Amino acid sequence: MKETFVKELVKVDLNNPILVVGFPGLGLVGKIAIRYLARQLKAERLAYLYSPHFPYFVHVNKKGSVRLLRGTFYFWKNKNAKNDLVFFTGDSQAQTIEGQYEISGCILDFAKEHDVKLIVTIGGYRTEAKDKPKVIAAATNSELLDRALEAKAMISAIESPIVGTAGLILGLSRFKKVNAVCLLGETRGYLPDPRAAKSVLEVLRTMLNLDIDLTSLEEEVAKAEKIVTRLQKIEEKRTLQAEEMRKEEDKKVSYIS
Amino acid sequence: MKETFVKELVKVDLNNPILVVGFPGLGLVGKIAIRYLARQLKAERLAYLYSPHFPYFVHVNKKGSVRLLRGTFYFWKNKNAKNDLVFFTGDSQAQTIEGQYEISGCILDFAKEHDVKLIVTIGGYRTEAKDKPKVIAAATNSELLDRALEAKAMISAIESPIVGTAGLILGLSRFKKVNAVCLLGETRGYLPDPRAAKSVLEVLRTMLNLDIDLTSLEEEVAKAEKIVTRLQKIEEKRTLQAEEMRKEEDKKVSYIS
Amino acid sequence: MKETFVKELVKVDLNNPILVVGFPGLGLVGKIAIRYLARQLKAERLAYLYSPHFPYFVHVNKKGSVRLLRGTFYFWKNKNAKNDLVFFTGDSQAQTIEGQYEISGCILDFAKEHDVKLIVTIGGYRTEAKDKPKVIAAATNSELLDRALEAKAMISAIESPIVGTAGLILGLSRFKKVNAVCLLGETRGYLPDPRAAKSVLEVLRTMLNLDIDLTSLEEEVAKAEKIVTRLQKIEEKRTLQAEEMRKEEDKKVSYIS
Amino acid sequence: MKETFVKELVKVDLNNPILVVGFPGLGLVGKIAIRYLARQLKAERLAYLYSPHFPYFVHVNKKGSVRLLRGTFYFWKNKNAKNDLVFFTGDSQAQTIEGQYEISGCILDFAKEHDVKLIVTIGGYRTEAKDKPKVIAAATNSELLDRALEAKAMISAIESPIVGTAGLILGLSRFKKVNAVCLLGETRGYLPDPRAAKSVLEVLRTMLNLDIDLTSLEEEVAKAEKIVTRLQKIEEKRTLQAEEMRKEEDKKVSYIS
Repeated sequence: MKETFVKELVKVDLNNPILVVGFPGLGLVGKIAIRYLARQLKAERLAYLYSPHFPYFVHVNKKGSVRLLRGTFYFWKNKNAKNDLVFFTGDSQAQTIEGQYEISGCILDFAKEHDVKLIVTIGGYRTEAKDKPKVIAAATNSELLDRALEAKAMISAIESPIVGTAGLILGLSRFKKVNAVCLLGETRGYLPDPRAAKSVLEVLRTMLNLDIDLTSLEEEVAKAEKIVTRLQKIEEKRTLQAEEMRKEEDKKVSYIS
Repeated sequence: MKETFVKELVKVDLNNPILVVGFPGLGLVGKIAIRYLARQLKAERLAYLYSPHFPYFVHVNKKGSVRLLRGTFYFWKNKNAKNDLVFFTGDSQAQTIEGQYEISGCILDFAKEHDVKLIVTIGGYRTEAKDKPKVIAAATNSELLDRALEAKAMISAIESPIVGTAGLILGLSRFKKVNAVCLLGETRGYLPDPRAAKSVLEVLRTMLNLDIDLTSLEEEVAKAEKIVTRLQKIEEKRTLQAEEMRKEEDKKVSYIS
Repeated sequence: MKETFVKELVKVDLNNPILVVGFPGLGLVGKIAIRYLARQLKAERLAYLYSPHFPYFVHVNKKGSVRLLRGTFYFWKNKNAKNDLVFFTGDSQAQTIEGQYEISGCILDFAKEHDVKLIVTIGGYRTEAKDKPKVIAAATNSELLDRALEAKAMISAIESPIVGTAGLILGLSRFKKVNAVCLLGETRGYLPDPRAAKSVLEVLRTMLNLDIDLTSLEEEVAKAEKIVTRLQKIEEKRTLQAEEMRKEEDKKVSYIS
Repeated sequence: MKETFVKELVKVDLNNPILVVGFPGLGLVGKIAIRYLARQLKAERLAYLYSPHFPYFVHVNKKGSVRLLRGTFYFWKNKNAKNDLVFFTGDSQAQTIEGQYEISGCILDFAKEHDVKLIVTIGGYRTEAKDKPKVIAAATNSELLDRALEAKAMISAIESPIVGTAGLILGLSRFKKVNAVCLLGETRGYLPDPRAAKSVLEVLRTMLNLDIDLTSLEEEVAKAEKIVTRLQKIEEKRTLQAEEMRKEEDKKVSYIS
């Protein structure tokens, strides 16, 4: 394998499809959102994307079965509205600069082949911890951005870059005459953050008029919070211990000098 | 040289050949296993694989003769059974991500040209020291995995990736409609580990119904163990010395405070 | 996108055009100079250069609009003289060695298509702080170099390399039979340095007989100097504090021993 | 420029030419040797080799003239013997693994076009300081190696790799049916080492029956030795000072405990 390529699994007729892309990144926001969407809507596998720019190892599952790292396209026939949905997520981002451009371009080409006219990319936006993460939006045109803002997304206060596939797809989409919007959930970023994914999905639900229940995501949020609380307690304990040790040290020092 | 390529040395008709691949990696398990097999069976050289993704130096032997780093395919005409064997090992793994994919693909292409329908890859699996290393198996289909389990291999308790060529060949083999199984010998990994190679070869011998004597490998195991014992003694001595020094330091400190 | 390419925005007939290139580099000298020129002369956009060797993120502006990193060519129809001007600057240099060569070559190709016969590249030259930064010149032929020296540029006292696109374009221009000169403004380099850009533009103005006012650049120089002064004060304060702390430490130590 | 290429400067008929290659490397042994040979024999420039795998800067000379990094082929018409000579040296080695293979292959291709049947590569071999550096030889065939040994070169006592172009050219030459020998002068390696270059040239002179005077190289050796002596004195002084400081520290410590 010398180049990124897409292997189609089924042939389907898609009705004005919209592509929603969420690669693993900051807080895994994009990946959590796409996996939740695909499961809730019972989306089916459409195609795999393989690339020599993914890390050079393979996944082994609990049954001892092996597969390459890959990206997966899912499709969902939307019976109630005019737009079918295609989802994309993957195991990993590309490992080189050129690979990032190549994979983003390959996703776009596949979208174009299926006559996608709108792409939504999902990712994380680094901030300090907040009760309710906001959603930052950026887009390739102002009408699209307005749709995101009406759905309660915000524009970033500062000009900050969007790193990785979530950004590059928007940048490259102009060459293909595809509109694209990026939704970034605020996250501290160093732990999987379903709360940020939920904020993004609320905006997406409004934007795309989706009838989707986010309750089960609440459970993941609760689970993630327990982990965070536990980690915080461990950290507090460590800080206290370090404090105690410092005091002991100080005693010694003051005794000497 | 701009691309990986294979240079065939002889033309042979191979009877339903099975390819066994062992690149140098963790504990050199794969390389030790293949070299042992090739020597014991008096396998002959079939082809060399060259690549610009190998390190940029050449080997010089004791006679002052020079050669590029390379991989070597060997073949063995199996008179007692229906499958001839092809072995592959090399001097080094590829040095870049893209090189890892390219070389794995090149090995597969060569196998396909020789009508190989089954590939076994061999490597190491990092664990703490054990008396008898187990063999972890993963495969591209469940029948093949069962064959490995019947030969006393195990499935990994946790989902852990297989890094490098040993894994990528399995991942890529699906595209070529070749079945492949990976056998990983448990090893601490930082020293050549013939004991782990022996465990793997015991499984392989059963799986492929090979009439092969592993006694001489015992000698290598004994030799390797002597080295390990010596290194452990050095380490113990160092630990003791460090302990003594700490005690001396403690005396000083308690004297001060 | 797998290769660097140029996307032309308008078709214009250019009259013996001269290309002036300033990528971001040491002290941002090249970029500041080109942006000032383009604004003062009200130059118009001619083309964009895109490359998979630029960093893998996208820019978002205050309105939430997204675009790829890129280089921009501008053109200016010179009514008073025989040479129209083309300017080039960009968001970033290439991130790999091969990318540096590819992008420099791509700029040259574009120049050649527009029948450019002279290229000026602008950059920074690292030195200690000076009241009036000098301009160091180097060129592909001696007549061109003489023109720069007559315009008060100097030759470097020591043989020092020119790193990045500013240098590579000169190196590669021989293959295209284009003459090229490089003007480097002396700069400490770690802050945007409009003063160095001004020195370069003074030389360029003389060389190309440009009627351009550099007064507004003075304002940027004043602004930049305020920042430098502020940073210096912070640094002085830190040095003083560090000094105080050292003295305190010394007291302790001398008390002990 | 996307690939390494050679640009021929003159057309000459060469008589059974032998190519001698010395890239900058350990102790600059190869480069010093080739430059000395080319000057002494008044060899003329034959061709330049350019590559996007060289570092991305350009050289500026004292006159302000600019050029790309490159390799240079020289030729020398040998009136007294049957073999004309071609020399090759360059500004820098390739900066990537794949570049090392590409440039070595490109040199070989050029040699093949000029019907070269023998290549000698020159480099350094790391050892501790010695009065008279030995020359280590390795070759693609035993007759050639014998010629080197007869000329007082030696085989390395241990199997050690040859890194970079000096080695890769030998490795790749088999594919082109060209014989090649590598001569490595013993050197500590961290300073330009004309003494090691001289040892290599003595062997080469004998092997190729060259009438060449090495006296002027003696002057460079003397100059280099002065630098080494000066550096050694600085180092000794530093060691003494460090020793003094340690003693002072020890006094303090023993005073405390």
